[in-house]
Amino acid sequence: MEFAVDFGLRLISQLQSPTIGFLIGGMLLAALGSKLTIPSAIYQFIVFMLLMKIGLKGGMEIRNAELSDMFLPMLFAVIIGVIIVLAGNFIFSLIKSVKRIDGIATAGLFGAVSASTLAAATVLLDEEAIVFEAWVPALYPFMDIAALVLAIVLANVHSKKENETSEEKVDYWSIIRDSLRGSALSALILGLLLGLVTNPERVFDSFYEPLFRGFLSILLLIMGMEAYERLHELKRVAHWYVLYAFIAPILHGLLAFGLGYIAHQLVGFSPGGVVLLAVMAASSSDISGPPTLRSAIPTANPSAYIGSSTSVGTPVAIAVCIPLFISLAQIVFNI
Amino acid sequence: MEFAVDFGLRLISQLQSPTIGFLIGGMLLAALGSKLTIPSAIYQFIVFMLLMKIGLKGGMEIRNAELSDMFLPMLFAVIIGVIIVLAGNFIFSLIKSVKRIDGIATAGLFGAVSASTLAAATVLLDEEAIVFEAWVPALYPFMDIAALVLAIVLANVHSKKENETSEEKVDYWSIIRDSLRGSALSALILGLLLGLVTNPERVFDSFYEPLFRGFLSILLLIMGMEAYERLHELKRVAHWYVLYAFIAPILHGLLAFGLGYIAHQLVGFSPGGVVLLAVMAASSSDISGPPTLRSAIPTANPSAYIGSSTSVGTPVAIAVCIPLFISLAQIVFNI
Amino acid sequence: MEFAVDFGLRLISQLQSPTIGFLIGGMLLAALGSKLTIPSAIYQFIVFMLLMKIGLKGGMEIRNAELSDMFLPMLFAVIIGVIIVLAGNFIFSLIKSVKRIDGIATAGLFGAVSASTLAAATVLLDEEAIVFEAWVPALYPFMDIAALVLAIVLANVHSKKENETSEEKVDYWSIIRDSLRGSALSALILGLLLGLVTNPERVFDSFYEPLFRGFLSILLLIMGMEAYERLHELKRVAHWYVLYAFIAPILHGLLAFGLGYIAHQLVGFSPGGVVLLAVMAASSSDISGPPTLRSAIPTANPSAYIGSSTSVGTPVAIAVCIPLFISLAQIVFNI
Repeated sequence: MEFAVDFGLRLISQLQSPTIGFLIGGMLLAALGSKLTIPSAIYQFIVFMLLMKIGLKGGMEIRNAELSDMFLPMLFAVIIGVIIVLAGNFIFSLIKSVKRIDGIATAGLFGAVSASTLAAATVLLDEEAIVFEAWVPALYPFMDIAALVLAIVLANVHSKKENETSEEKVDYWSIIRDSLRGSALSALILGLLLGLVTNPERVFDSFYEPLFRGFLSILLLIMGMEAYERLHELKRVAHWYVLYAFIAPILHGLLAFGLGYIAHQLVGFSPGGVVLLAVMAASSSDISGPPTLRSAIPTANPSAYIGSSTSVGTPVAIAVCIPLFISLAQIVFNI
Repeated sequence: MEFAVDFGLRLISQLQSPTIGFLIGGMLLAALGSKLTIPSAIYQFIVFMLLMKIGLKGGMEIRNAELSDMFLPMLFAVIIGVIIVLAGNFIFSLIKSVKRIDGIATAGLFGAVSASTLAAATVLLDEEAIVFEAWVPALYPFMDIAALVLAIVLANVHSKKENETSEEKVDYWSIIRDSLRGSALSALILGLLLGLVTNPERVFDSFYEPLFRGFLSILLLIMGMEAYERLHELKRVAHWYVLYAFIAPILHGLLAFGLGYIAHQLVGFSPGGVVLLAVMAASSSDISGPPTLRSAIPTANPSAYIGSSTSVGTPVAIAVCIPLFISLAQIVFNI
Repeated sequence: MEFAVDFGLRLISQLQSPTIGFLIGGMLLAALGSKLTIPSAIYQFIVFMLLMKIGLKGGMEIRNAELSDMFLPMLFAVIIGVIIVLAGNFIFSLIKSVKRIDGIATAGLFGAVSASTLAAATVLLDEEAIVFEAWVPALYPFMDIAALVLAIVLANVHSKKENETSEEKVDYWSIIRDSLRGSALSALILGLLLGLVTNPERVFDSFYEPLFRGFLSILLLIMGMEAYERLHELKRVAHWYVLYAFIAPILHGLLAFGLGYIAHQLVGFSPGGVVLLAVMAASSSDISGPPTLRSAIPTANPSAYIGSSTSVGTPVAIAVCIPLFISLAQIVFNI
């Protein structure tokens, strides 16, 4: 009972946070037909700035990190990405009205990670003064790539079964390479490297760090507008997607929270790290995922996977899962 | 005599302010044929940032404002918008060489408000340490919408008289709705709402507030370049527009200053608020107005209203009216 | 011996600076086929911001500068621009396989100045706490214009000799005017003027100054990506360009260092100023030069001059010359 009250109060207070306020504000703007737009050049720049900042911070901290501490969460990130895609594939295979290839692509996108949802979570952890190892966001590519690669492999296996004449082999390495070359992972990894091998403290403190919170507020505004505008895409796909997109982020996050808790017990993984691992699992990719899947699984219907992810999955991940896992951590870890 | 000397000195010192320096710098660049351009994506982003900042600040302060204090200035803002359009319509109707529809559109644009002129005024008030209630910029939409709606109604009435067969009715609500949906008012109102219902102090202090002055300097540079480039548009329209655009901002501002003074006596409206109300009345819309009028009064010649507003009205509002009303306030209110 | 060790250590430490890290990072991204791009609107805005900041700072300091101190370095800047172009023209005229017109254009570009290389040098001087007169970057247009004008004159003289029927005269004034109207010089000179005649300290301290280092990091990233992508252009031109582009920046810089040293002895030109004069001479124009040359010497092959400048000249200027001249200054001036 006390848990429910405590959780309810925390949930309400986090809904009043400006971070989520901007997301809801964007949805309101779109709902009311506002002509306000953020130019795409600004959007691209904002994404670059956010990921560089996350990467630089991670790189600067990995220098001081115990790599042995990082290994287990890294392994868990890969395992979570794999489990999400396998589970999603299995669930959608039970629903006959959903095309197999669409189900696989959707599972892949929900296994992949949203860097901006992750960024929002780091800000909220900061506001709650919950510490986490700065290398935690660097776990992102491990879960992301594992999920996307596996989804593409499953899609290719499925196509092969349908069309036995096809002799083409899945080029695993090229899929990994394309993921790493995408603008999102490129910026994150570049930031990591520069944080690792140069001394970017001054430019970080004078530029990337102070602008982060503001640019994130604008990104959330954009995401809110997009989420609303793509709601209609869901009308064309089975209602099953809505159900999956509502429930899956919470279950994925709880699975990751459990594995994170094990890492906490074994290697002292921080409470904030456990929350971030859970948020990574709960989030679905909004930047790197869609173009990757669209080019690698061209037969899948983007309305299915983008619609369920952007319209339902991401709002649930930000507005439900982030406060849920923060509250859970505050109770489980007694902080 | 003392007034004239005092006013002259203040005027000169405000012409040396960087705010006005950037406007004149932009005009110089255009006059000398510079190829310097600020990309339109940056321009849109800057306008968004400025209006969000003004909105957020307003919203954060309305929480603490006495709504009873705000009511009278709000009513006066509507009245001023209506008087400007009616007066402009009457004046232009006396000049036979000016097409009625062009005169109405021009009056509408001069009744509408320039958010960036308003922003410039808030910075100059700040520099002079003249206080104003933070909700004052929130009066802007009331004057803006009243003027645009009335101009469009007058234009429709005029068209109806000319073409008696037309049976279409003016859709007042759709005009109000379109004004609110424009990117300028959307950003301002969104900022107001977020300032009212969330706690954006941190993102405001780390992002919107520190970047405001710099983005404004760039906006003024752009406006200076545009004002110069559109000077030639005036050659094609009657010289009456130039005369109107020179004199009207000053008279509109003085009218608003008078009403603001009444509000000062009745409900303690601040001296800075009186200046801002006068600047709103003196300014003509450069962002929300032109597209609204172009689509709602398609028969009016944009060279007439945009030319007189951007080339003459806005420079007069910024370079003459802002320092004039600040000086007037300093003498009238003895500050 | 001690010099070599000392120089080697300084060189290595400067290669670890984030400024150069971002350049190398950009080259790595391009080499690995990353899809990361910085939108061109952002690029244009960044260049504007950097040059405005340099101009404003220069203008604010010229107010306090002893113009007699500035005169000799200004004269030397012009002389260096002229010598670089004459020497380059002479060297390329000895190599029969290189088209004369291409050689002249290349020499012109190496005589012109890269504002971003200059900006990088000011940051590195700052990091090393080596002071310089703030008006030093204002020497840039003098070297830049002298070199571009002379190259265009030489090209026209050459064309005239080849084609005796041509009666067109070189319009020197129009070349100077076009250089000044380019976006790079426009922003720099506008900043200078605003710094001289207005009081922009507040907007400078709150906006242009704090964002400078960060925007520069992004510009260097972009330049790194471009430098790598244009490496292939060199395959099409004689290997002589590579040799010239490798050696010339160092020799040009040493010449300027020598003249700067004379100015140090005669009028007390600062050690940092000597370094910046050398870096200006070592740099080749990446922003204002290429479009100027492309339109003014249309027969020259852009692959030759842009290829050698961007792919070899600029990396050498930033990664070799800046640390070289800083180390040299530290030893020569015992700082």
